[in-house]
Formats: sequence, structure tokens, C-alpha cells
Amino acid sequence: MTHTHTPRHPHSLEHAKELDRHDELARFRNEFIIDDPDLIYLDGNSLGRLPKHTAQRLHEVVENEWGKRLIRGWGEGWFTAPQRIGAKIAHLIGAQPDEVIVCDSTSVNLFKLYLAALQARPGRTRVVTDDMNFPSDLYVLQGALKLSGPHYQLLITHSRDGLTVTNDALQANIDASTALVALTHTAFKSGYLYDMGAITAMAQRAGALMLWDLCHSAGAVPVDLNKHKVDLAVGCTYKYLNGGPGSPAFLYVRRDLQAQLLSPIWGWFSQKGQFEMELDYAPAPGLNRFLAGTPNLLSLAAVEPGVDLILEAGLERLRAKSIQQTEYLIALWEAWLKPLGVALNSPRDSAVRGSHVSLGHPEGLRIDRALIKLMNVIPDFRYPDNIRLGIAPLYTSFAEIHEAMQRLRQVIAEKLYEQYPTVRPEVT
Amino acid sequence: MTHTHTPRHPHSLEHAKELDRHDELARFRNEFIIDDPDLIYLDGNSLGRLPKHTAQRLHEVVENEWGKRLIRGWGEGWFTAPQRIGAKIAHLIGAQPDEVIVCDSTSVNLFKLYLAALQARPGRTRVVTDDMNFPSDLYVLQGALKLSGPHYQLLITHSRDGLTVTNDALQANIDASTALVALTHTAFKSGYLYDMGAITAMAQRAGALMLWDLCHSAGAVPVDLNKHKVDLAVGCTYKYLNGGPGSPAFLYVRRDLQAQLLSPIWGWFSQKGQFEMELDYAPAPGLNRFLAGTPNLLSLAAVEPGVDLILEAGLERLRAKSIQQTEYLIALWEAWLKPLGVALNSPRDSAVRGSHVSLGHPEGLRIDRALIKLMNVIPDFRYPDNIRLGIAPLYTSFAEIHEAMQRLRQVIAEKLYEQYPTVRPEVT
Repeated sequence: MTHTHTPRHPHSLEHAKELDRHDELARFRNEFIIDDPDLIYLDGNSLGRLPKHTAQRLHEVVENEWGKRLIRGWGEGWFTAPQRIGAKIAHLIGAQPDEVIVCDSTSVNLFKLYLAALQARPGRTRVVTDDMNFPSDLYVLQGALKLSGPHYQLLITHSRDGLTVTNDALQANIDASTALVALTHTAFKSGYLYDMGAITAMAQRAGALMLWDLCHSAGAVPVDLNKHKVDLAVGCTYKYLNGGPGSPAFLYVRRDLQAQLLSPIWGWFSQKGQFEMELDYAPAPGLNRFLAGTPNLLSLAAVEPGVDLILEAGLERLRAKSIQQTEYLIALWEAWLKPLGVALNSPRDSAVRGSHVSLGHPEGLRIDRALIKLMNVIPDFRYPDNIRLGIAPLYTSFAEIHEAMQRLRQVIAEKLYEQYPTVRPEVT
Repeated sequence: MTHTHTPRHPHSLEHAKELDRHDELARFRNEFIIDDPDLIYLDGNSLGRLPKHTAQRLHEVVENEWGKRLIRGWGEGWFTAPQRIGAKIAHLIGAQPDEVIVCDSTSVNLFKLYLAALQARPGRTRVVTDDMNFPSDLYVLQGALKLSGPHYQLLITHSRDGLTVTNDALQANIDASTALVALTHTAFKSGYLYDMGAITAMAQRAGALMLWDLCHSAGAVPVDLNKHKVDLAVGCTYKYLNGGPGSPAFLYVRRDLQAQLLSPIWGWFSQKGQFEMELDYAPAPGLNRFLAGTPNLLSLAAVEPGVDLILEAGLERLRAKSIQQTEYLIALWEAWLKPLGVALNSPRDSAVRGSHVSLGHPEGLRIDRALIKLMNVIPDFRYPDNIRLGIAPLYTSFAEIHEAMQRLRQVIAEKLYEQYPTVRPEVT
């Protein structure tokens, strides 16, 4: 019996399945709890799926470590978890093991690093960012500047069309009064991927420090902080690193800066000789000075197995699959959705695009509701009109993307969204 | 057959067992995972034991909520957990449900409230505390004052003998330049219980705000913040509330102050209309403005069942048992340990003593080691010489106290500690 190899139509389900059969990362899907095979989850860039090992690890931490070892757990791996997990994340972002630590939330870590940076550049009173930065980054920055005094000033660079910002526009705001340039590496709405090397060099040429928020990059996009001599970075672990809801964030301070910088929050975990219980503060050497209070150990422990999976899969392979999948999704958009009036709100060029694709439609909010409620597809919605489709190459399949785009086409073509309210419910 | 009721010797094991038989809270011990019946755990004031319900709840949150509901979990109880659990803790500390919220660590919450208080009292540049306050409280305060400017000053009131501080000594430091008085309600070393009403009144008479750290009080000692018109409070949940290692802390801001105060950390969870994603910060109404980043949900979820147990047992009953047990422990100290040169480093009067008892001995560190390694008793050690014995009336039995004091007597009488080093290992 012979097979005739008729080329499949590139938009057919068969082609999607063929791509899955050739996917060398396909086996990693098995490492996650997936209870509803009909559900298409395209929000791994908001909250990653639950790794099976994480469920096991948490059971171990709760029942055996807390339950049986009690306070002794701190001496048996808990105390060193921020550094140990930080060292693993360092591998993913081109940093040294002692340059990354896991603690607190992204917002709290931003606060620490913003103030540390401002104090390390006395006399410089401006911070440069842009309007594509994540709102929490902007809010925390506004608060840090207010605390620093009335002469401090925030320069919000305007994006071109809300999707990308040019290096020239950023350059125009950076000068000898700039203390810090603070940006998000992969934009949360459009997925635009900034030129880390060029922008860091711009900031540093002007004598400013450079801070990158890696929330939408870590575990999805290769990052090389050391190569680009980046000064400061933060990132979350609940997106592509699959650390669980609200899992602790990480922060990075380049090694040669660590002794010069000081966190504004002088908690006991940042103290030199923490258990000597001296009355006067003395910052710990190294990155420990950026810890604050006792780490949320259960949330922290949940981070490690997800990071291990990313390390095992390898970031280069993950990025290759992510590009292949976002390209595939965009090809289906072009064939099926563009004719229905759906815009591509992400860069067309994969070299400047992270691991999610935003599609724009005036009825975006209601379409998002319809996808979730009627179609068992979970995307994400970001004002004003972005339907954000996240590709998590560890577990997203081509067949899922194909099916999600078909369901999305149906929702729009048949206006199935019209039964949903135009106002977002209070909490979603 | 008749029983002759010969009175048992008050220091006999039989008497301890008799006390356990009459303990109306005894059944709560069954609500906890206790795998080693020989282990005597007297460190519930550092890390409370694991409630059985908590193990179940975490399994549910991980496997069913994160694993199956994924991002939808935020709309199904996660977003409201800080307020919901805060409202339960409010019952334990004499506050209204909308005056307490659970988030971040104690240190980070102290930082928020210190700065909020300093900004609410412009022109006042002094903060009054004492040398019995927990070091992290002092460190964070020193950092907050440094950030506020060179004219800010910390006044550390000296304790009498390291065990108690007089109201007069505090009063002497409070004047019209005082912005804030910040103290820990139950002292972490001696267990001294401050006079919340009198000291709060002193602070407020001078026009200062009053902040109480309730870490060693919440769930162990009745606290009535509203009755005493306390302005601000923080506390942890991993001690008597049994929330798990490094579980999130709580903070309290009296209702009428909430609109006047502002957190220095302007994270997106503190933003009015968080998901509108405006570029400019606007603080949420009410206590939400004291949130910062995304809550560590797994750690947060673990807090609730432990709080429920405390509510079920009732704080008055818990306090009555705690006093009975610390009195019992002190009676055994007097009979067995005082003759061996062990000091009582806690107040003798139960009215001014929290739920732990500190015993002093020059070889305290080595005795602590010997208890853990040889005797299967877990106390806690605090420099320079305090062996801290924590009573957690939900699960501590009289028979355990009896046995622990016998083992402690043996360690000291037979100098079994001499095989242990005099220097504390790096991490314990």
C-alpha cells in the first residue's frame, strides 16, 4: 500500500496536526494538568498552566515540610529558595546566578529598584518611560518620584499607533538629567519586542541606569542581560514560567552595582547577620539586601518546577516554536479574520514580536466574553479593543491555534458576541 | 467500686493529664497534622502547625482552581481573598471588616504605613519606638526615615532590664514633634504585653499617630483596636494564625483615616479601576489603596482555614487556656529550673504577658540545640540568652508542657548541651 503525498492546504486542520507531529517540544504538553481537552487556553501569558510536578512539589512542601518538619523547614531549603530559584531564572535571562533573586511582587520589586536607581544618580531628576509600559510600572514609578521630591519628573514617550515605540522617540527624551530609563521588554498589549541592546546603550551613554521589566519575556523570549550590560531588571513568574497565581517575582541587579545600590525597604531578610537581631540596620552584602520580609514560602516553592521545565525545554527551541506558532496564527488571521475587519495589533515582523498576538476589533470586549462563555476558548482582553492571544510553546499546540481561530471566526462572522454586555463586569 | 480522690501532686504528669481532660479546647488538637507524637512543638509563635483543612484547601486551590479554572480563578474568589480573609482577622483584633486587608509581608506593610503616617503628619519629624521592638520593624523604620529626609529622627526608648518598658519612659519621648509612635504589642523576646489603651491615648494626645505590630498578639491575645481608637496596625499570619511559612501579613487602617492616607507603593492592585489601565495613578477608595502587586495567591489561600479555626475556638477561651498554660509552665520552672540557675525572662504577671514564656540561661543557645537534637523538643532561641517557649492553645497540651519541662531540666541538670557549639550555625 502506498501513500500519495498530496500537499495539505496550509489552513487545514490536517496541516495543523502535521505541524504538531513534527514539534520536538510536543511532549512537554504532557507535563501539565490538562483536564478539559476541548478548552483552548491562550492566556498562558497571564497565568501559565499548572505543571504536574508543581502539584506534587506543593503537596510535599505542605504535608511533609511544613506539616512534619515545621520551623526546621527554614534550615532545610526554605531560606535559600529565593537565591536558588533566582539562580535558575538567571540562566533564562543571561545573568549570573548571584544576580537574580525571587521575592515579593513585581510592583514591590519595581519600587525597590526605582528608588535605588534614583538614589544612585543624585542630581538627575528625570525618568524616561513610554505609554506602552504596563500601568503598574507607571503607577509605582509615579509614586517613587513623588516620594523623591517635587523636582522629580516622569517623561512618558509616546508610541507610534500604540503598537511600537521608536528608538528615536526614546532617544529624544534621554539627556544628562536622566537618572533612569525604565521600559517593559515585551509590550503587554502589542507584544512589541524592544531593542534591549540599543536602548540600554542609549541610556548608559547619557549616564542613566537602565531597567527592563521582563514580565512578558522571561521564559518566552531569549534575553541576555549581561551581554547588553543591563543595570536592573524585574519580572514575574506566573506567566511563561508557570509559577502559579500571584507567584513571587524576581529582580536582577548587575553584580558590580549590588554594593552601590540600596533597597528603600530595610526588612530583616535584607539585614547583614539577620539573626543577630541588632537594633541598627546594616545591609547584607550582595543581592540579599533587596529582600524585605519573610518570603511567602508556599507561593515561592511553586515557582521552581515551572522554571525547571523551561530550562529542560531550552529557550532557543521555545522561541523557535513560539515564532512558528505566532506566524501560523497570523497567517490564519490574514486568511480568515482580516476580511472580517479584525486588525493585527502586533508587529508583523517576528523579530520584534514576543509570544502573544493582539487582534483588534471594536467589539473586542464582547468577542472576548463570547469566546470564553460560548466557545471554551480563553484569550485575554486589554482596553480598548485588544483580544490578546498568548502562545505558550510548552503546551500550546498548532491544532489548538487552528481550532481557536475557527471559533473566533465563527463568533465574529455570526455576531455571536451581541448577547454580551459592552461593559466589563467589575471582576473577571 | 469507689474512687478515692487523693489530690495529685501539681507537678505530676497525672495532674497535667487531668488538666488536659478538663480542657474544653482539647479537641482542636485533632484539627492539626501531628505525625510525631513524641515531638513537643513549642514554636507555634514562630511557625504555627499545619491545620488539616489547610492541606485540603491548598489541594483544592492548586488542583481544581489553578489547574482547571486557570485565569478564571481570579473572578471566582481569588481577587477578593485579601478583603475576605482580612474581614475575618478583623474579628480577632476588634476592627471592622473593611479595616483589615491581607497582603505582602509584615515588613512591606510596615513600610507602607510608616510612610503613610509620616506624610499625614507634615512638620512632625520624630518617630518614637523602643528597643524591645522587633528588629525588622526598627530596620524598616530607619529606612523610611532616611527616605523622608535628614531632619527625620528615630527615638528608641530604653527598656527596663530588656523585659518591659514603662509607659512613663515612652511618654517622656513623645511630644509635639512626634509624628508616629510605633510599637509591638506583645514583645517578641520577653512576651511583655503593652498597655494598648494608655499608650495609644498618649500618642494621640500629642497629635501623633499610633501603630501597633500585632505579630505576637493576633490569634493569641484579645486585641480591641476600635475600642482604643488605634490608628494603624500590622501583623503576620504564620504564628498563632497558623497560615504557613511566610504567609502574607495583614494591615489595618482605621476607617476614618483611610481616605487621608496613601501607600508609597502605587501598584496596580491599589489603583482605582484597576483594569481600565489608565496611565495615571489614582488611589482606590478604602483599604484597597494599600495593596500593591498581584497577591501571592497560594500563600494567601492557606491563611483562611487557620483563621477559621481561631474564630471557631474563640479568642476569650484561647486566652484563658493560654494563661492557664503559661502559669503552669512558670510553676514548673519555679520548682525545677529556677534552682538550676534558669531565669524567668518574661513578666510574672499574666495580665502583662502574651502567649510565650522566655527562660534565660547563659548557655541558652546550646540548650536550645540540645532540646532540638537530643530531646525532640522544639523551642526557639533569641539572642542573647532567651529560650522562648511558645504556647499555642489550639494544640499545645498540658502533658506536653510537663514533658518538655522535664526534658529541659534533664538537659540542664546533666549538662547535655555541652556537646553543642556555642556559635549559631549560619542558617537554622
